[in-house]
Amino acid sequence: MRPEIVLFGDSITEQSFSYGGWGASLTDTYSRKADIVVRGVSGYNTRWALFLLHHIFPLGSTTPPVAATVFFGANDAALLGRTSESQHVPIEEYKENLRKIIRHLKECSPTMLIVLITPPPIDEEGRLESVYGEKATKLPERTNEAAGSYAKECVEVAKELGVSSVNLWSKMQETHGWQKKFLSDGLHLTPDGNKVVHEEVVKVLNGAWLSAPDMPSDFPHHSEIDPQNPEKVFKQRCL
Amino acid sequence: MRPEIVLFGDSITEQSFSYGGWGASLTDTYSRKADIVVRGVSGYNTRWALFLLHHIFPLGSTTPPVAATVFFGANDAALLGRTSESQHVPIEEYKENLRKIIRHLKECSPTMLIVLITPPPIDEEGRLESVYGEKATKLPERTNEAAGSYAKECVEVAKELGVSSVNLWSKMQETHGWQKKFLSDGLHLTPDGNKVVHEEVVKVLNGAWLSAPDMPSDFPHHSEIDPQNPEKVFKQRCL
Repeated sequence: MRPEIVLFGDSITEQSFSYGGWGASLTDTYSRKADIVVRGVSGYNTRWALFLLHHIFPLGSTTPPVAATVFFGANDAALLGRTSESQHVPIEEYKENLRKIIRHLKECSPTMLIVLITPPPIDEEGRLESVYGEKATKLPERTNEAAGSYAKECVEVAKELGVSSVNLWSKMQETHGWQKKFLSDGLHLTPDGNKVVHEEVVKVLNGAWLSAPDMPSDFPHHSEIDPQNPEKVFKQRCL
Repeated sequence: MRPEIVLFGDSITEQSFSYGGWGASLTDTYSRKADIVVRGVSGYNTRWALFLLHHIFPLGSTTPPVAATVFFGANDAALLGRTSESQHVPIEEYKENLRKIIRHLKECSPTMLIVLITPPPIDEEGRLESVYGEKATKLPERTNEAAGSYAKECVEVAKELGVSSVNLWSKMQETHGWQKKFLSDGLHLTPDGNKVVHEEVVKVLNGAWLSAPDMPSDFPHHSEIDPQNPEKVFKQRCL
């Protein structure tokens, strides 16, 4: 029935329907126009995400998604030799994995609107408080600098393969106090942080051919229904 | 892939992904376990909803939803002779329409978990302020008494046909100050009101066979992935 927009990513996608979440807001924006399908896998990096590609985006589907957000990198950028090193993926492999994901999505549907989202910035202070608490080692497992390198390459890959991107790492840092305003634990998003993702993704979709205001609603608006002859409008719409 | 839970109803369902919305919270509750599909049609009563039944719940589907919420009545209960009379449906017809909806869903899938939700209570004061503003006629187009009658019949129909129900009209009025705490304009829900719907629906689903904590996640948890041999767990899960 409705076109589908798939949100593919890590915990920041998985949690996007929590209070004030960007996935929920997107569902609201595309109300009666497109279905938002959340496929977020907490803790995953791009290396592990590849194993899910054929499962989430099967080739040969007659109704592939019209759009997909690809939002990985926060885990890939975890530092070697620190507490989250098992999630680390070297930056060159991260780039190549993103290319593989994009190529697969294009094979799934050549017209799919693909939106790469870079990892958000890291508030190292917030991260230390959150991850280590009282036992703080004072050695961050993620740094803003590392996240920035991955973000830069993410935007590069998008350009290279001709797909859209949102540079969340840069965008968030334009706002004073982004560390606490947008991030709840130095990495995951507050409602304000979710709002940034929602706005930026909507901007990209609007700028392409998936502008919600321009899309048809899938059932007659109640004001179009003649109370004396309700079947008329439903027949006109072939329902 | 994942089982689907469809939310079928009027504006209170359509708006359930707005800030703090019950549909969004349900998506979060069933994260990686079930997909929540929103099919809310603002302004619709049960008479008009019937025209959408075959479209939203096609017979013969090989993957029908595992559950559906049916949340109509707020518009059916609009009073005759007042500004929203075109949405009014006589209470006997409302009951019969609910029966038709339930019978259709059971035909669609005999095992579908069906949850009828009654209309919420009406705060007539809030309604007058919202609908009429400065031009207040002082004649409410919806009353709490009328909503209560429809709520009672909704629960009756659920009992009669052996499906679950949430008596939202009663439940909300158990809380002191429900008028402003749960309703934003005397009819639609505040984030606190959405929370009540979410909690009550989850209670019903948990009490049946769709308890989220008991359902399997559809992909391996990241802690199950061996960083040295990631393909192992994905092969085990046949991905």
